[in-house]
Amino acid sequence: MRIVITGGCGFLGQRVALQLLAQRDVDGLVLFDNAPSTLPLPDDKRLKVVTGDIADREAVRRVISTGTDSVFHLAAVVSGQAEADTDLGYRVNLDGTRAVLDACRALGTCPRVVFASSLAVYGGALPPAVGDETPLTPQASYGTQKAIGELLVNDYSRKGFIDGRAVRLPTVVVRPGRPNRAASTFASSMIREPLAGREAVCPVSPDTVMALASPRRIVAGLLHAHDLPADAFGASRSLQLPGFSVAVGEMAAAVGRAGGEAAYARIYWEPDLQIQQIISGWPQGLQAPRAEALGFVADSGIDEVIQAFIEDDLEMQKQLV
Amino acid sequence: MRIVITGGCGFLGQRVALQLLAQRDVDGLVLFDNAPSTLPLPDDKRLKVVTGDIADREAVRRVISTGTDSVFHLAAVVSGQAEADTDLGYRVNLDGTRAVLDACRALGTCPRVVFASSLAVYGGALPPAVGDETPLTPQASYGTQKAIGELLVNDYSRKGFIDGRAVRLPTVVVRPGRPNRAASTFASSMIREPLAGREAVCPVSPDTVMALASPRRIVAGLLHAHDLPADAFGASRSLQLPGFSVAVGEMAAAVGRAGGEAAYARIYWEPDLQIQQIISGWPQGLQAPRAEALGFVADSGIDEVIQAFIEDDLEMQKQLV
Repeated sequence: MRIVITGGCGFLGQRVALQLLAQRDVDGLVLFDNAPSTLPLPDDKRLKVVTGDIADREAVRRVISTGTDSVFHLAAVVSGQAEADTDLGYRVNLDGTRAVLDACRALGTCPRVVFASSLAVYGGALPPAVGDETPLTPQASYGTQKAIGELLVNDYSRKGFIDGRAVRLPTVVVRPGRPNRAASTFASSMIREPLAGREAVCPVSPDTVMALASPRRIVAGLLHAHDLPADAFGASRSLQLPGFSVAVGEMAAAVGRAGGEAAYARIYWEPDLQIQQIISGWPQGLQAPRAEALGFVADSGIDEVIQAFIEDDLEMQKQLV
Repeated sequence: MRIVITGGCGFLGQRVALQLLAQRDVDGLVLFDNAPSTLPLPDDKRLKVVTGDIADREAVRRVISTGTDSVFHLAAVVSGQAEADTDLGYRVNLDGTRAVLDACRALGTCPRVVFASSLAVYGGALPPAVGDETPLTPQASYGTQKAIGELLVNDYSRKGFIDGRAVRLPTVVVRPGRPNRAASTFASSMIREPLAGREAVCPVSPDTVMALASPRRIVAGLLHAHDLPADAFGASRSLQLPGFSVAVGEMAAAVGRAGGEAAYARIYWEPDLQIQQIISGWPQGLQAPRAEALGFVADSGIDEVIQAFIEDDLEMQKQLV
């Protein structure tokens, strides 16, 4: 199997790559990204890194070349940046997605495409829990672009150009590495940094409820979405993945349980109205009966997620300067 | 007021133009289209026709020039054609819409934009009546492109680039002139042609129910959507316009009531499975309480609509060879 991962040098892309190399029958795996990996990659002859611009249609066609069986399309400009830089957001998140889908269509072999969508497709006056039946009314450019991506994946799948799967990922916590420009980046920082011995700022109120999933579950979900047969998706190629809901104050308390009073005290509460507004516009709860029936699984709660972070990432995190 | 109408030489565009010239304080009105008008235009110094490609961003920027107050974006490849020619549909209906919105944004003056959306944004397992709350799950490329247009109009309005209004138009009946490549074109042909003394084919079963509106109501609706203050739209710039529901068999019976047995006998029933499938995927009923509260009005029924066609268009129609 020949696979391409866009955004392949990002944190999720790399983990998907490692799982594919370890667990699937992979002949070739291309990580396409706008910058080389900052993390060491395994010395594996099947693995190749290509740097380029996702909105460069020619570059994308060269990467998604004849013989490509599957594409994980994870490349994106994150929410905060897409909101601040409208042109960049549309260029990467819309033009880039179209470049990927058109390159797949040009193969003429109906390749499998897993598209990472987001909770940001929901917005406005939301029910207590959102899911497959909730109308998509995004309140920011990032969610608009992800909703458009879902529409394209569905249209291209219906027409037989691709075998697409658009999975709405919960907010990923704990994301290792450095903060990024996602509005939700604090949700990882407020766990990651105090446990690694550093201070972190929480810009939203403790009673803010978020719908989360761990990197382990997200990566497993992306692979499971890839492996399912097409007819498992039925009438829609869009699928809400399950997650768990937790208040930000409870996330802080769990940092205290895992790292002690000292870790808890490294969280500083500094309200930022703009971030509060974006996060408050996201869904607080998820209903994912269709995904659960298809075998997707949610984390049991925040303590399990923090434990997984400690096992998988904390040592590396402590070494970051 | 300076106004641009894209698709301005089309049937709806021309009627919107005539109404604007007659009823509004218009200083300049540009009809932008890919072909010159086939119908005579009034001799009015304020009126100008520009031909060009809606997806040509430079051409669109030249037309939507400094001082443009309002744009009616009606240009589109119709449903049947967008389905058959994927590239053309995306080029005109997606790239073209982005060219229009970006040209409006470049003005820096937040111009008013009325975008013609469609019932084709709905699809799949639908409730008996659809409306503002129904999720958009289009089942064809045309509806996909219109749903994307709505998302863009909402995002650009939220960001203050435009003051947008995306109105979901019911199927327009009776459309004068010649059949086009819309899947719904028969709904006009089966009324228009028999009353003008010609035969027409109906490709769907008599019990097929459609949600319709007359040209008079559609044109009035587009103007009303333009004139409303921005805050009338509240959280969403998308709005389902009201229409009326009627079975195709009842449409044929109404042709008999208006044109006699001879007219009724000119309708030939020749089932076309592909068209039946597309039309059956469209909503049969509309719920538009929000639009009705804002002053949009539906036709009373098919007999009123046919009478309006006879008054407005039948003589011209008889002269078409």
